[in-house]
Amino acid sequence: MPTLKIDSARLNRTLEELGRFGDTPEGMQRIAFSPADIAGREYAISLMHGAGLETRIDTAGNIIGRRAGSVPGLPAIALGSHTDTVPGGGKYDGALGVMAAIEVVQTLADNGVTLHHPVETLVFTNEEGTRFHRWLIGSRSMAGLLEPEDLIAVDDEGVHLSVRMADIGGDLSRIGEAARKPGDLAAYFELHIEQGLTLLQSKIPIGVVTAITGRAVFEVEIKGMANHAGTTLMPARRDALVSAARLILAVQRLASELQACRVATVGSIQVIPNAVNVIPGNVRLGLEFRDTSMEAFTAAEAELRRAAREISDSDGVEMEIECHRASQPVPIKPPVQALVEEAANRCGLTHTRLPSGAGHDAQAMAAITDSAMIFVPSQGGISHAPAEFSTPEDCANGAQTLLELLLLADERL
Amino acid sequence: MPTLKIDSARLNRTLEELGRFGDTPEGMQRIAFSPADIAGREYAISLMHGAGLETRIDTAGNIIGRRAGSVPGLPAIALGSHTDTVPGGGKYDGALGVMAAIEVVQTLADNGVTLHHPVETLVFTNEEGTRFHRWLIGSRSMAGLLEPEDLIAVDDEGVHLSVRMADIGGDLSRIGEAARKPGDLAAYFELHIEQGLTLLQSKIPIGVVTAITGRAVFEVEIKGMANHAGTTLMPARRDALVSAARLILAVQRLASELQACRVATVGSIQVIPNAVNVIPGNVRLGLEFRDTSMEAFTAAEAELRRAAREISDSDGVEMEIECHRASQPVPIKPPVQALVEEAANRCGLTHTRLPSGAGHDAQAMAAITDSAMIFVPSQGGISHAPAEFSTPEDCANGAQTLLELLLLADERL
Repeated sequence: MPTLKIDSARLNRTLEELGRFGDTPEGMQRIAFSPADIAGREYAISLMHGAGLETRIDTAGNIIGRRAGSVPGLPAIALGSHTDTVPGGGKYDGALGVMAAIEVVQTLADNGVTLHHPVETLVFTNEEGTRFHRWLIGSRSMAGLLEPEDLIAVDDEGVHLSVRMADIGGDLSRIGEAARKPGDLAAYFELHIEQGLTLLQSKIPIGVVTAITGRAVFEVEIKGMANHAGTTLMPARRDALVSAARLILAVQRLASELQACRVATVGSIQVIPNAVNVIPGNVRLGLEFRDTSMEAFTAAEAELRRAAREISDSDGVEMEIECHRASQPVPIKPPVQALVEEAANRCGLTHTRLPSGAGHDAQAMAAITDSAMIFVPSQGGISHAPAEFSTPEDCANGAQTLLELLLLADERL
Repeated sequence: MPTLKIDSARLNRTLEELGRFGDTPEGMQRIAFSPADIAGREYAISLMHGAGLETRIDTAGNIIGRRAGSVPGLPAIALGSHTDTVPGGGKYDGALGVMAAIEVVQTLADNGVTLHHPVETLVFTNEEGTRFHRWLIGSRSMAGLLEPEDLIAVDDEGVHLSVRMADIGGDLSRIGEAARKPGDLAAYFELHIEQGLTLLQSKIPIGVVTAITGRAVFEVEIKGMANHAGTTLMPARRDALVSAARLILAVQRLASELQACRVATVGSIQVIPNAVNVIPGNVRLGLEFRDTSMEAFTAAEAELRRAAREISDSDGVEMEIECHRASQPVPIKPPVQALVEEAANRCGLTHTRLPSGAGHDAQAMAAITDSAMIFVPSQGGISHAPAEFSTPEDCANGAQTLLELLLLADERL
């Protein structure tokens, strides 16, 4: 049984209070760099000050709270996540990890406990990537994984990243300084909602993440022939939307029946001219694959290209397939997974291993330090939507496990 | 052999000149009521004056040119079409019928020929319906077929039809006066491009239209469940786009394999939220059926609803199907078809009977007078696009047939 107990009521109250910044009838709108995001960040900073942390904002806009350790020279153990949301998002994705991290250090402070290692609480900038369509900006900066495209990013309002960075206390011209030196952090632990149904359906309160799935994003352009929908007989058509429909079903089959990869989704479609009385001449599909193994991506892409060729040949349309983005799967080290299991055991909570289907700041942080993720159940498996919800008990279970994990790591690392 | 010959060079020159109003690199933009449309109408009026016609604009904005007949009290024979285009349209749809009508009366004038009947040349308002999403405004006004919705129409810029009508010389408050009295017209003849491949592929210069197909337009809403594309496993999904893809293929099959109706098209799609990393939760499809028989519409709708039920049941999504608009097929009377054939024979031109897949002003005019349509070949079967083209020879053949048809009708009616 744990000797230190987090305050469930306090944790859930801070989660609720953070959820007021950017709350709208259409869900959370705490888009990175927005006034609501800035207000949420200030709320997190005030809680960190309340827990006795020293805070600073690095050049990437990340908020870093720090509690000193008792042994001089030891690297810090970091706990964190993000407070930005997708448009129309929920109150738990990211927010739970940040509020739990602060609750953990508040509990240490309340009990006058000083660990050997310093403890840091991290709020990463623009995890969701809604703004700039470039995600994990804060954690990739800290992990030294920025890409040249990040530095020239301009958002949909035409504002350059440097301006937005200055709004939150960052400095794009010195963003390289946000990268942590090797050995600077002993570990990074992130509590997050599962965003899936595995824990809920198996009635297991704690998920031990084995890997963060990689993601490959493709754009497919299908070129048929626009023509009059009344005068063009069926055999004379090259209807790009009909061919797109065949490809959408092939992508679905590729994951569900062929199991070439874990999940495959066609999420977006643009049709030209998109008028009911014109045969669609041009269709663009946005699709993605996710899996924890690189072999799966190779297999899924091969099947996608095979299906596209077959449809092109039968329908007389052209298909161009372009891979837009790809992130590799990030495994969590087995000894770190074992540490999470031990922490859950100490809390008297059952647990199961599962991969993360979503990307997280932890996947960037894994490049520079041992990283782990703890999942708690998502009601209905829903996320990135106003109905996103995890029960107060599940949130508290996650925070308690995070605290135990910190205490264990402080002993073992 | 015809005794009166239209001037092919003059006809094709006026077509080309009309095509300069609203010409852009993205095709014709002579949208009804636009400055380009108004300029095109003024050009048509100037040609009518050149041909010695008296002109007036009725309260629906229709341009009516009139050449007197020799026998007092006879009703007029009308020739016409429209000069507005779809966005990104071509230079022949509508334009050919108007320029040919004027060429025919110019030829009468040049040869000093006065017919028994008066002859009218008609330019109908807003045939395409791009503006106000209400089509055949002019011809339906003349035929007394306006609907209450027409009178309250507001365009995408928020401007009421009454304002646009005033811009072109019409008067919405007295639009009822545009309806012609029974017996006011002896016949209505319209030359038009086929907009399909039948004539081109069979190398026949003249099409004799047997019927104008009816059209039934449906909107289908598919309600699935939006969710995270990375964390929601395939069996847990209710992907509205996957179900939409199945329905798109069912609609295509319904016309092509089952031949329930002549043509069936899903032309438009809206997906919510339409992001590559979110499983589509909601899809709206715009689709239409066209045929010359009412039984076909019944069969096609039954098959659509059967397929939708099957997909709803298998995929766990909801589908709502709503019929938005329906226009009945309009047959052309066999004796009038025979008159067109005789006219083509007199010109030494081969001909074939075929239905019109597109709607035309003639379908409204058929409600108040004997109507006929003459088709000429469309290169590539292309229309409503910048590449729309009919050869100068084909255009001249159509105009010559229209003249012979007028002369025949003047004798027989």
